[in-house]
Amino acid sequence: MERYDIAVIGTGPAGLEAAITAKVRNKSVLLLGSKGSSDKVAKAHTIQNYLGLPEVSGDKMAQAFLDHAKGMGVTITEDKVNAVYSMGQYFAIQCHGGDYEASSVIIAAGMTAMKPFPGEMENLGRGVSYCATCDAALYKGRTAIILAYSKEDEEEAEFLAERAENVTYIPQYEYDGKLGGNIIVKKDIKPVSIEQIANGMQLTVEDGTFVADGIFILRQQIAPSQLVPGLAMDGNHVQVDRQMATNIPGLFAAGDITGTPYQYIKAAGEGNVAALSAVSYLNSLKNK
Amino acid sequence: MERYDIAVIGTGPAGLEAAITAKVRNKSVLLLGSKGSSDKVAKAHTIQNYLGLPEVSGDKMAQAFLDHAKGMGVTITEDKVNAVYSMGQYFAIQCHGGDYEASSVIIAAGMTAMKPFPGEMENLGRGVSYCATCDAALYKGRTAIILAYSKEDEEEAEFLAERAENVTYIPQYEYDGKLGGNIIVKKDIKPVSIEQIANGMQLTVEDGTFVADGIFILRQQIAPSQLVPGLAMDGNHVQVDRQMATNIPGLFAAGDITGTPYQYIKAAGEGNVAALSAVSYLNSLKNK
Repeated sequence: MERYDIAVIGTGPAGLEAAITAKVRNKSVLLLGSKGSSDKVAKAHTIQNYLGLPEVSGDKMAQAFLDHAKGMGVTITEDKVNAVYSMGQYFAIQCHGGDYEASSVIIAAGMTAMKPFPGEMENLGRGVSYCATCDAALYKGRTAIILAYSKEDEEEAEFLAERAENVTYIPQYEYDGKLGGNIIVKKDIKPVSIEQIANGMQLTVEDGTFVADGIFILRQQIAPSQLVPGLAMDGNHVQVDRQMATNIPGLFAAGDITGTPYQYIKAAGEGNVAALSAVSYLNSLKNK
Repeated sequence: MERYDIAVIGTGPAGLEAAITAKVRNKSVLLLGSKGSSDKVAKAHTIQNYLGLPEVSGDKMAQAFLDHAKGMGVTITEDKVNAVYSMGQYFAIQCHGGDYEASSVIIAAGMTAMKPFPGEMENLGRGVSYCATCDAALYKGRTAIILAYSKEDEEEAEFLAERAENVTYIPQYEYDGKLGGNIIVKKDIKPVSIEQIANGMQLTVEDGTFVADGIFILRQQIAPSQLVPGLAMDGNHVQVDRQMATNIPGLFAAGDITGTPYQYIKAAGEGNVAALSAVSYLNSLKNK
């Protein structure tokens, strides 16, 4: 498997800046995220204080960022990260679309107002999962519920349904798909909580319950403490020092995920520092 | 005297970003520096990794920054800061051109490869001074040496010469001025060290010595520990936390002066954080 020098998770200002700075330093970069940069950037109204881009709209700024990255030969791999494991000398990055390896990792995944459901964290890995593709093999002849947050999740549902006896698909977005067969789509359902019961997992919703062997929650973003086992947090944010180093050697973080203020230029500046810290880390590995 | 909400020292990326962010937050801003941004920026070759401004030359980048600031109504006061004193509820900022007051201060003065001469620091305030205008009154009937680093220093020399018996002017730049009268200009002199002797201060140069009652060193930039009495340093850099706060309440720092990497986007990001921290500080004063 190709081992990248630096894997960057996230394509907002922090991730894009980290990727171009790593490129300038001639490092091989795996940039995981969305080809449209970040929703938060693209949907922003006027941004007044990104120095050098006066009075710019969110979508124009996102375009300027993406054009810059493209011009530097940075490509974006559209995949959703499920987990990052430190393997000592390298990191294993488990994505929905496959696995990757990198010598260092920069997490720049942003902050969403993600609040886990009551019962979610407690049952993670014990009936609750964030990646249907990763765990599909375990569901042969069993039943599953999917809480889906974007159209891309329909593919994961189909893949899971090839193994599972049946899949209950509960979209939390404007669904106009064509899922069928052993996939039962339930629209306009508001999940409330999750609990383990005698015969499986129970999802309580606003007006009833669903029961299955497992529940998949396919949010766009996973809480960083879940994404990287052992990652030290400072409240909701990843704990970093001024060099953007986390408590895990070779793992850096940048942007909103490291704390307030949630500002584009702050995020970009941190992406730059994280990339140069990763370069230093790579040099230190070479000299060992 | 008008008391500004925020004084920003330095007009590189950190200072300009701090000023525009403070403006967005409706704070009154005193921005001290050069109308040409920073020499370091303007003279840079191509900058590849300032996200959003691909492959930009230093002078174009400086222009984009200045245009942005101007468009936001930010004006630059061209003055050289001699000292910043914390007065408890506000700061007194002593400049060559006059004095200012501000409730909070952001130091974004950059890093120059400034190395004090042997004997300089030891004799600061005891025969060595950084501001001729400030100390001119003390030199009535006495003699002075000026080590000058830019054309603007010629004006300071003239002001000092109105009081002093005579002034030896030693330009460290391409001098083509017209200083005369009791100002003796000595070109092509390389200073080596400074010491106190029985009858005054002695400046040792590569092929001789000069003696006078005092020596003025008019560098473009003063070491931050000299600029702000009591400022905690981390080696050559101002010690800051992730909010860009220094050890002095209400005083923040941003950009190269806070440490490596010396990168434009890192500096701008820090300017943004420093400005928002200053705004929080101002709010905390109000609530006292």
